[in-house]
Amino acid sequence: MDTPTPELQTMPLGLYDVVQLALLGAGFALFAYFVYAWTTRDEVSPRYRPSAIAGLCLAGVAMLAYLLLYIDWDTGFRLEGEVWVPNEEARSTEGTRYIDWTVTVPLLTVELLAVCSVAGAAARRLRFTTMAAAFLMIVTGYMGAQVLSEGRDTTALVVWGLISTAFFVYLYVALIGAVRTSMPTMGREAAASLRNATIVLLSSFGVYPLIYAIPVFVDVTPAWFTAMQVGYSVADVIAKVGFGVLTHKVAKLRTAEDVVNGADTHPEPVWSSHVHKSDAVLPELARVSPSVLSAVRGGVTPADDGRRPGDTGLSGR
Amino acid sequence: MDTPTPELQTMPLGLYDVVQLALLGAGFALFAYFVYAWTTRDEVSPRYRPSAIAGLCLAGVAMLAYLLLYIDWDTGFRLEGEVWVPNEEARSTEGTRYIDWTVTVPLLTVELLAVCSVAGAAARRLRFTTMAAAFLMIVTGYMGAQVLSEGRDTTALVVWGLISTAFFVYLYVALIGAVRTSMPTMGREAAASLRNATIVLLSSFGVYPLIYAIPVFVDVTPAWFTAMQVGYSVADVIAKVGFGVLTHKVAKLRTAEDVVNGADTHPEPVWSSHVHKSDAVLPELARVSPSVLSAVRGGVTPADDGRRPGDTGLSGR
Amino acid sequence: MDTPTPELQTMPLGLYDVVQLALLGAGFALFAYFVYAWTTRDEVSPRYRPSAIAGLCLAGVAMLAYLLLYIDWDTGFRLEGEVWVPNEEARSTEGTRYIDWTVTVPLLTVELLAVCSVAGAAARRLRFTTMAAAFLMIVTGYMGAQVLSEGRDTTALVVWGLISTAFFVYLYVALIGAVRTSMPTMGREAAASLRNATIVLLSSFGVYPLIYAIPVFVDVTPAWFTAMQVGYSVADVIAKVGFGVLTHKVAKLRTAEDVVNGADTHPEPVWSSHVHKSDAVLPELARVSPSVLSAVRGGVTPADDGRRPGDTGLSGR
Amino acid sequence: MDTPTPELQTMPLGLYDVVQLALLGAGFALFAYFVYAWTTRDEVSPRYRPSAIAGLCLAGVAMLAYLLLYIDWDTGFRLEGEVWVPNEEARSTEGTRYIDWTVTVPLLTVELLAVCSVAGAAARRLRFTTMAAAFLMIVTGYMGAQVLSEGRDTTALVVWGLISTAFFVYLYVALIGAVRTSMPTMGREAAASLRNATIVLLSSFGVYPLIYAIPVFVDVTPAWFTAMQVGYSVADVIAKVGFGVLTHKVAKLRTAEDVVNGADTHPEPVWSSHVHKSDAVLPELARVSPSVLSAVRGGVTPADDGRRPGDTGLSGR
Amino acid sequence: MDTPTPELQTMPLGLYDVVQLALLGAGFALFAYFVYAWTTRDEVSPRYRPSAIAGLCLAGVAMLAYLLLYIDWDTGFRLEGEVWVPNEEARSTEGTRYIDWTVTVPLLTVELLAVCSVAGAAARRLRFTTMAAAFLMIVTGYMGAQVLSEGRDTTALVVWGLISTAFFVYLYVALIGAVRTSMPTMGREAAASLRNATIVLLSSFGVYPLIYAIPVFVDVTPAWFTAMQVGYSVADVIAKVGFGVLTHKVAKLRTAEDVVNGADTHPEPVWSSHVHKSDAVLPELARVSPSVLSAVRGGVTPADDGRRPGDTGLSGR
Repeated sequence: MDTPTPELQTMPLGLYDVVQLALLGAGFALFAYFVYAWTTRDEVSPRYRPSAIAGLCLAGVAMLAYLLLYIDWDTGFRLEGEVWVPNEEARSTEGTRYIDWTVTVPLLTVELLAVCSVAGAAARRLRFTTMAAAFLMIVTGYMGAQVLSEGRDTTALVVWGLISTAFFVYLYVALIGAVRTSMPTMGREAAASLRNATIVLLSSFGVYPLIYAIPVFVDVTPAWFTAMQVGYSVADVIAKVGFGVLTHKVAKLRTAEDVVNGADTHPEPVWSSHVHKSDAVLPELARVSPSVLSAVRGGVTPADDGRRPGDTGLSGR
Repeated sequence: MDTPTPELQTMPLGLYDVVQLALLGAGFALFAYFVYAWTTRDEVSPRYRPSAIAGLCLAGVAMLAYLLLYIDWDTGFRLEGEVWVPNEEARSTEGTRYIDWTVTVPLLTVELLAVCSVAGAAARRLRFTTMAAAFLMIVTGYMGAQVLSEGRDTTALVVWGLISTAFFVYLYVALIGAVRTSMPTMGREAAASLRNATIVLLSSFGVYPLIYAIPVFVDVTPAWFTAMQVGYSVADVIAKVGFGVLTHKVAKLRTAEDVVNGADTHPEPVWSSHVHKSDAVLPELARVSPSVLSAVRGGVTPADDGRRPGDTGLSGR
Repeated sequence: MDTPTPELQTMPLGLYDVVQLALLGAGFALFAYFVYAWTTRDEVSPRYRPSAIAGLCLAGVAMLAYLLLYIDWDTGFRLEGEVWVPNEEARSTEGTRYIDWTVTVPLLTVELLAVCSVAGAAARRLRFTTMAAAFLMIVTGYMGAQVLSEGRDTTALVVWGLISTAFFVYLYVALIGAVRTSMPTMGREAAASLRNATIVLLSSFGVYPLIYAIPVFVDVTPAWFTAMQVGYSVADVIAKVGFGVLTHKVAKLRTAEDVVNGADTHPEPVWSSHVHKSDAVLPELARVSPSVLSAVRGGVTPADDGRRPGDTGLSGR
Repeated sequence: MDTPTPELQTMPLGLYDVVQLALLGAGFALFAYFVYAWTTRDEVSPRYRPSAIAGLCLAGVAMLAYLLLYIDWDTGFRLEGEVWVPNEEARSTEGTRYIDWTVTVPLLTVELLAVCSVAGAAARRLRFTTMAAAFLMIVTGYMGAQVLSEGRDTTALVVWGLISTAFFVYLYVALIGAVRTSMPTMGREAAASLRNATIVLLSSFGVYPLIYAIPVFVDVTPAWFTAMQVGYSVADVIAKVGFGVLTHKVAKLRTAEDVVNGADTHPEPVWSSHVHKSDAVLPELARVSPSVLSAVRGGVTPADDGRRPGDTGLSGR
Repeated sequence: MDTPTPELQTMPLGLYDVVQLALLGAGFALFAYFVYAWTTRDEVSPRYRPSAIAGLCLAGVAMLAYLLLYIDWDTGFRLEGEVWVPNEEARSTEGTRYIDWTVTVPLLTVELLAVCSVAGAAARRLRFTTMAAAFLMIVTGYMGAQVLSEGRDTTALVVWGLISTAFFVYLYVALIGAVRTSMPTMGREAAASLRNATIVLLSSFGVYPLIYAIPVFVDVTPAWFTAMQVGYSVADVIAKVGFGVLTHKVAKLRTAEDVVNGADTHPEPVWSSHVHKSDAVLPELARVSPSVLSAVRGGVTPADDGRRPGDTGLSGR
């Protein structure tokens, strides 16, 4: 129990710079993806929009978390001679990650499910249980890695790690099930992208428990700590940016399919890598029987009471 | 009177980390919800927009309040050995919450009422009285919990708490009344979501007075203080994010109802969990009697005086 | 001259917390209003848009000013025992307000005039003179309250206060005149809201000289100083947020009137408190004589010189 | 050479407050103008949009520069007794201005030229030479005022000032020429506004060399230094905000002219000070020969290779 | 090994100010370009949008990187007498650049390729390999210049520089190939702009290895260090802003070509330097067989199960 926590080790110059690259580079990538998600969200139809919005929201949270990580890394070490010596600010370079994940991992499941085809009450049920499982998976991991004995108690690490893994397993099964039943409902190219997105997400998810388990098996030297920080950062970029770009492609291709099938309109054409997928189609204009409507409208004045067919305004008291 | 205020206690490592999770996690969730509210506000028609805007505005305020809380928590304690020792910055980790609520709780009542059906002067009256009651409920609570003897005077806590409770009761009665009269005016699914949203809001509201009353009954140890901070954070997330998502669903379903009934147009289709609720319908084009209009238009030049039928421009002096 | 300036007094705990509530609460309210103004600006037609934009811009400036005020208040005092002792940062908690007002008060006059009906050159003249009067009213007040002897010279306070008052009187007369001539040109409900907005603005304007004059008549104790800060903050919220919401309603109702009268189109319906005021009406489509246009278009290639009927491009040198 | 640079003088209280007003007030005005430019940029048609965008971009840069100036002013002086004593942070209150201008002055020339009528290659040539001249005018001024001997070497001031003046003269001649040839191509009101905008820009440009030359002729006392800071701030607000509002008016009026002439469409009506200038006109709908198109469309499936008439996709390798 | 790293040299006043101009000026230019890219991204059709978005994202990252560089420069030196003495914050004024480039250089290749005509799988392959090569080119450069012996080991500099150069050569060959095959597929003016953009990008890319190699050949004096910082900043502005403006022009001209050819619609006209390139054309309206649709629509109620033709919703469990 006298060894310092991994976050509070003296770092040699070169390794410090490698972690700097990982943290700031991942932060830049997540910021760029946030801008991407913001500016491309209208490329998908309202049907798949929840996926785009979930990706956007989690990108924003992850970007802020890396801002905090970078600030903690920058101010958490002081150069003394040829080594960087940590102070209390350096303590949170792992904990902040877990807090980020409590919000972003549940949103990742929303992002994936919203481009699958499960609908209605079944979709709401699945979304709720996977979000809850993801949230609990992270919170129980935080207990083991941060709260109890600052993550230096191997027994706590293992016990809470196993509890966390149970939620992890449920998540895999539920998401894979949803993807498998959805793939036949969409076109070949969209289905292939959905499969790729799922593989990217679930395999990068697999990296986190491996890193979590490192302190169980080895003494966390500066080199191991560097590997942990680089591993977490790379996994975050792949699971959020790489997965997000693929998911956006699925949503875009399905939007194009809906337009081509006449099941939906979309105000701009869909293109993917210079290949034209669907035309722009505006919604129909309000079709009103002129006579009925002008009768209705005749009574609409600024002082009108606003009662419309099918609307029961309650203006009494 | 010699016991420190709850905010100024020495915190052990693990509990400090749990509060860190609560504050930063709630801040992240509110930021994500702010982005969600910003990017989905056009999914509801102008009729229900005040609800969406109120949710957006209060999310922004709450997000900033949690930013301040996090900064105060981060800079308000210094690590000495194995415990965190507070300084003056830690004083405001409860007071800032009340200041946030003076703005956000009145907006929560707007958010709810704007998806009900009370209309016109009755709606304006109800909105004004519930906003005022919500504001006074918080300000009187701030008096007892922060201003008078720093919240350490039990008599002040109880007296101001009771005054605050009076406004609290009015709020419950008024909001439940509005919801009950509105539910029959909308479709079954929208009404169910409105009922759920109301339950979520009012039951999470009930948590705050319970936490407020803790110092009246127990000595606020670090564990109790942690429970208060976690309780406030969880209640804030549920009352703002959870309630907001449900309210947005009500507004979206009612928008779809209005389009299907022909009472309104909406430029994009409404989907809810992959279920199609209404088509996109563009407004009608300006119907102008061509002959009249081209006569009017013949005279429109850049130097035109701008007088239009029905418009009394006052360009004289 | 040996008494400290009001800004540099030692503050007891409770009063310090009350000012904190006033500054941060007002800042939150202005931020919420900024978001509101940003997201509702397209509810009014381009004709009344200058009003919405003026409200938005001044909300942004006021929000930033309160951010500065809050930072100065937070860092400008150090807790020593049971009292807060000021340092140099606390000096600007009045001066920053005047700097804010040099920009926001002229914009308030724009916001009001742009929903009146004065048009063309008369409108431009009125806008210019009221903006100039508002600007000079504030700058001369700053001279008396801040620049000369740090506002501790009663003679300077009175003399510059009187000069400032002259501009104040002109402003009242000019704005009331514009409102009175405009009210008959709009519908009953819009006119009533315009009258209310004007009353809110001008009566809250009346609060500022009263607070300005406090140091002339009394010794500014911490309690008086608290009253000044709370008074300024409440007046700012009423004059900016309350007035802004009412002005927005005037603009929205007048937009609906213009659509109902056929004087304008507006791409979305106008609703006010669940009362329907006007339908959405799209502009007409470009009416081109097909034969003429396809002739013109036949010649439009990427290498076209861009000369169009009615356009005298100067591409020579 | 032993006199301090103007930026490093001890400032009495009143003058310090006047500079505070100038810096923070100008910063607020530029921020408000940035918001204005952002939210009104779609009031002008794509033809004149480069002007609106240039105004927006330069407003953003100037706003950030004043943020830096304000921070440097706030942290660059410490109150000692009744005077403010500068430290090294105060050094950049002139240099930061030049860095701002290297970006904003070239953009001002874009903003003006984009509402003139010079077109095609001639326009590109003129834009390039005036941007280059503006950039070099500022960089050479920075050499004399900041880099060489910290601006305390009178010979350097004069020599670099003269070089800078040469670019200044070219700029005047080129811009006046473009404006004079463009004025006859537009309506009377737009031409008058263009003339006013040009006068505002070029006369405020004239203020900068006068302030630059002050240290050549007088000892820069705190009062002179205050005059320089106020002068620069006022000139910046007039040349950016005042000029920008006038230029926006030119672009709006020309947009209305193009719509009235049938040379362009614009999706919203143009109003100026309650005077109606043009109707909203939507673009025509895609005119497709139904038979041809449905043939084409028959072949568009999600797996389509995207080749369209007139498009040579290169999908081979 | 006893000489300090270039970043940790004492800087004379004038050279310090020149670097200040380079860093802050480049930061301002990149911020202005970010605003430009944000506000003009809808001038290009969805087909070329990936180019516009890539430019926007990289502008955002580069802008933030220069913010960090400016902060490090401002806080990394303390004025002692007439020279600026560095501290540990000054260490990252080169490293941060590399971290920026790991994200921005891959995005520059996307920006260029997305206005070429390579389509489908070939496009995806090319995009992936050039992004990977660009990323590895920067990371290997970071190894030599920053991580190993803080860039003071000449052998490491040369070896890693050569590895980096290999990726550099691949990038040149791949990008030039794509541009050459694409130029014949577009109009003359677009092709010329594409050629110019490519020249600007690739020649500014050539500057970086030259600066990287400086420490191999000379002792890095303050003057050389100033030259390196100015060189990097100028190259960044040219490769990002200059290249971006040219690329945007290519995308705009190609959008106009597609509209003129009838291959695409675009809701606003395209103008370039006052030359009209294409009309605004709205998409067609949803063409529905009225009888079929009203049958379908008859069944659409808020409780509808959302199944649409061509849509296989999975609402079972």
